[in-house]
Amino acid sequence: MTEARSRFDDAERAAVYRVIDERRDMRHFAGGAVEPTVLRRLLQAANAAPSVGLMVPWRFVRVVDPARRESIARLVDLERERTASALDDRGAEFLRLKVEGVRDCAELLVVAITGDRERHVFGRRTMPHMDLASVACAIQNLWLAARAENLGMGWVSLFEPDELAALLDLPAGDEPVAVLCLGPVDRFYERPMLLEQGWAEPPPLEELVDER
Amino acid sequence: MTEARSRFDDAERAAVYRVIDERRDMRHFAGGAVEPTVLRRLLQAANAAPSVGLMVPWRFVRVVDPARRESIARLVDLERERTASALDDRGAEFLRLKVEGVRDCAELLVVAITGDRERHVFGRRTMPHMDLASVACAIQNLWLAARAENLGMGWVSLFEPDELAALLDLPAGDEPVAVLCLGPVDRFYERPMLLEQGWAEPPPLEELVDER
Repeated sequence: MTEARSRFDDAERAAVYRVIDERRDMRHFAGGAVEPTVLRRLLQAANAAPSVGLMVPWRFVRVVDPARRESIARLVDLERERTASALDDRGAEFLRLKVEGVRDCAELLVVAITGDRERHVFGRRTMPHMDLASVACAIQNLWLAARAENLGMGWVSLFEPDELAALLDLPAGDEPVAVLCLGPVDRFYERPMLLEQGWAEPPPLEELVDER
Repeated sequence: MTEARSRFDDAERAAVYRVIDERRDMRHFAGGAVEPTVLRRLLQAANAAPSVGLMVPWRFVRVVDPARRESIARLVDLERERTASALDDRGAEFLRLKVEGVRDCAELLVVAITGDRERHVFGRRTMPHMDLASVACAIQNLWLAARAENLGMGWVSLFEPDELAALLDLPAGDEPVAVLCLGPVDRFYERPMLLEQGWAEPPPLEELVDER
């Protein structure tokens, strides 16, 4: 592409920063539906992510069977209880949070790392977990695209991966890493919900950056 | 925020899809510099990423010492040789690829997962690797923001993480996951460089999506 065509202008740049700033991890959904053409655009956005050695380690499962969705919801309920127990003194506080929208969202997607990843060496010889990093980049793309489509998304990691893989009859070796709740919302949280709810107070950026 | 203010319009949505589509994993850089205010915006974009339980597991190291940058370049050179050996019959082909821009880029950043992560249980009890997933989301934000700033970025994972941690004198337990090469470029690749160079030919999206 020519240099002129390849440049982002101020308005485009502002839109990119806006979507990064206003993306939220949503757990409250308004029901409704996601148009098939919109869902396809979102998956294309995910698929445009970088991957280590261009291995494309992501696989997407759209959960369309209501009984299967309910089974996933129960798996998440169970892990929510176990997490509360493991949290000891913060368990009760944790249980007051809404941590997922599996039953309420318009679309439920499961994202897995593909099982044939061990044959990929480029960028993974000393860092085999770079396949997960690539999948996370794909999910972040999907998240930002969803926000630009005025749809909410939440990433749920409250499940036993082996049980979720069995429940979805995934190919051998595929490892689920995300249950994504996607769909229309009544409003986006002003700030991250766990900040609004007082669960965590992240440090300022200055404390996260060093020079060497 | 009000519903009207919170909506993305068509032009904003197009800019978001454009940046997702035109982001590239860059290995060719044009030297130059990154303005401090731009670098700060990029780090703020990274820091706006989601994180599991809002744990904010990312740490950024800006490499400013030329001798240290050269040491990192040598670490990457060494892993490039080892990867070529491990690739057997594709080793020679791999060695013909440009796989990093550590010596040429304007800014070199190292991203690490923080060492205090084991105290975070929310979303990590059965999925401890979700901290890496969060760090990858932060890096993807940075990548997209860099593209919107008309800057190139490449994620290098060709290094021994323990050796890189020692070289940077990282706090105990911090685990480096990315060497990021950032800066002006002469042009962005039309397509992913590993596709242009014939290294890999990813499957069409249809093969990556299932229904259950």
